[in-house]
Amino acid sequence: MPQARTLPMGRLGIIGGGQLARMMIPAAGRLGFETVVLDPTPESPGGQLAGDQIVGGLDDAGALAELVRRSDLATFEIEAVDTQVLAELEAEGNTINPAPALLACIQDKLLQKERLAAAGIPTSEFVGMEAPDADTLTAFGLPLVQKARRGGYDGRGVEVFTGAVIEERVLPVPSMVERYVDYRCELAVLVARSNTGEISTWPVVEMVFDDEANVLDLLLAPARIEDAVAEEARRVATAAIEALDGVGVFGVELFLTRDDRILVNEIAPRPHNSGHWTIEASETCQFEQHVRAVAGLPLGSTRQLAPAVMVNLLGAPGADGVPSVVGLDEALALPGVSLHLYGKHTVRPYRKMGHLTVTAPQLDQALDVARRARDLIRIEGSTAA
Amino acid sequence: MPQARTLPMGRLGIIGGGQLARMMIPAAGRLGFETVVLDPTPESPGGQLAGDQIVGGLDDAGALAELVRRSDLATFEIEAVDTQVLAELEAEGNTINPAPALLACIQDKLLQKERLAAAGIPTSEFVGMEAPDADTLTAFGLPLVQKARRGGYDGRGVEVFTGAVIEERVLPVPSMVERYVDYRCELAVLVARSNTGEISTWPVVEMVFDDEANVLDLLLAPARIEDAVAEEARRVATAAIEALDGVGVFGVELFLTRDDRILVNEIAPRPHNSGHWTIEASETCQFEQHVRAVAGLPLGSTRQLAPAVMVNLLGAPGADGVPSVVGLDEALALPGVSLHLYGKHTVRPYRKMGHLTVTAPQLDQALDVARRARDLIRIEGSTAA
Repeated sequence: MPQARTLPMGRLGIIGGGQLARMMIPAAGRLGFETVVLDPTPESPGGQLAGDQIVGGLDDAGALAELVRRSDLATFEIEAVDTQVLAELEAEGNTINPAPALLACIQDKLLQKERLAAAGIPTSEFVGMEAPDADTLTAFGLPLVQKARRGGYDGRGVEVFTGAVIEERVLPVPSMVERYVDYRCELAVLVARSNTGEISTWPVVEMVFDDEANVLDLLLAPARIEDAVAEEARRVATAAIEALDGVGVFGVELFLTRDDRILVNEIAPRPHNSGHWTIEASETCQFEQHVRAVAGLPLGSTRQLAPAVMVNLLGAPGADGVPSVVGLDEALALPGVSLHLYGKHTVRPYRKMGHLTVTAPQLDQALDVARRARDLIRIEGSTAA
Repeated sequence: MPQARTLPMGRLGIIGGGQLARMMIPAAGRLGFETVVLDPTPESPGGQLAGDQIVGGLDDAGALAELVRRSDLATFEIEAVDTQVLAELEAEGNTINPAPALLACIQDKLLQKERLAAAGIPTSEFVGMEAPDADTLTAFGLPLVQKARRGGYDGRGVEVFTGAVIEERVLPVPSMVERYVDYRCELAVLVARSNTGEISTWPVVEMVFDDEANVLDLLLAPARIEDAVAEEARRVATAAIEALDGVGVFGVELFLTRDDRILVNEIAPRPHNSGHWTIEASETCQFEQHVRAVAGLPLGSTRQLAPAVMVNLLGAPGADGVPSVVGLDEALALPGVSLHLYGKHTVRPYRKMGHLTVTAPQLDQALDVARRARDLIRIEGSTAA
């Protein structure tokens, strides 16, 4: 006898009102959910579309409690949440996915990597270092990467030492130090796992970084790799999320080494920049899949409908104030360009203001158009009100 | 020198807060627009996602004025709007697209058809009839269709007479009477035309109606017709919208006659049920294209990414009260199913509560899954609060 679902399906509380919330909210609405977000900025990108926004910090116990209690199920779109408060709310019987304990583990890069290694997931060699200094780093051996255990984001809190350890660049914080991987390319696999244990992945994608801004510049879906490598990447990513007992959508960042091994770099416990292409080019997008997963609905098909390339639209160097976009019309006139602006009221250098996804019959065509669109668009600041 | 666009791009006012507004709002947000809707029902399907809703009737001059004046550009998602009020607001310098005069023409089925015929657009033979009676209808000849000039919707205000004119079924209102077309199938072409004159169409779709409910049951994209017929359908639909000088997205409903002629049946001056499949399966969806068109942005590509079949989800016969959906989980488990619930708080028999789109590698696979999903889902009413 099939179950009956009374509408609305429930109210989804989203901790964080950034662009991920903004893209999750319409997907939740399609599935029949109402939404409420918590974010410190009034009229946040997500709050503009949500039924309701609670204005408050992500470490504000009262605001978190209000969000979770007003929701039938809660999730987050950003890692920087007070997990102690979340754990207490969960203990009171509130449903929060991914689980607060998992978020706490992932927030700490050392704990995250220890847990993956304990489960036999391939990663680069690493060691914890409570008070790093140049000598201990040198003793670990070069090349290496030092990562602050907590609080890094978009390349902040990460230092790479190849030829020598330069003392003034050593981060003076509790760290996870790992072998620098000489990789062929950086890959990502988006994994969805529902609270029923159903698990699913999308095709492997290839991430090309902007070294200056240290954020994703171009994302290619699918990655330009051999089928066997792609299969191995999906297998490793699936094993990682099963080892973590994760519920929701996870971005699993991977290295493909020069000798064709797959290593897990790190895991984002939420929909991920590397999965934005799924909105246009997959039968189920990552945001809908996340809602399906945390709500215990069947997962949707992850079949890819067309090759796609995604480009982040960042604030220009020096940009400040009200955003003003040059070249937008010209970029929209290119074939297969889908624009996503995030509704942010102010621009800063390298701030993610939006993205665009290009679909085309062939991946190299999409790549060509994406580069042209990227080169056309420039997001400046203006003093116009 | 490329133009600079200050963000937000502007505020789009949408007259009507139904499902079309609900689907248009995220598309407008992606393009950088804020939104406000006007609808008599608080927390309307569109109002749940819009930045703001004005609660008021679509014939309420004060509410219409408030919406239009608070918007940088205005549009509508339903035909039943007071066009006299809209025309006055336009004369004050407000931007409203499609134009109020065009909406007034389309609201009157006789005027609509006269304008199309005057432009040489192929339609079935027709005549205006101020006070219809059985004898005059019989004199026009059988088979015929009588349509109320104004106010018909989803099959209401339409009577078909084939073997004889039955006196008690004759609508006693000013009518447009036309020859009944013995068609091979019903087609639709979605046309977008921007305020710069740029024009574009999507692939031709095939509409299969539910005779009992008189609403679209299954929509197939693309239609199962020969290429030459599809080309002619797109040509005729394009010519029709150019003849009307329309700005926005228009649903052009067509007959394909048994002798392979294309005739325009009627035109919806807005995104259309027959274009919902474009959300999943076209490079640009009809809602984004509508915003691009009315805002004077370049139109997007209408390339189809996969065969698609769309099914309306209607309230069950006798359903009343809070909607309760049976079979939802089972339908979501089928491959390639994308669900769209409209957030309506009450169900009525045959009310459009949502739709689903199925994509698949082949059209017949999508059709098979769509039929299974349709047969699984039943939307009842429940008294549960």
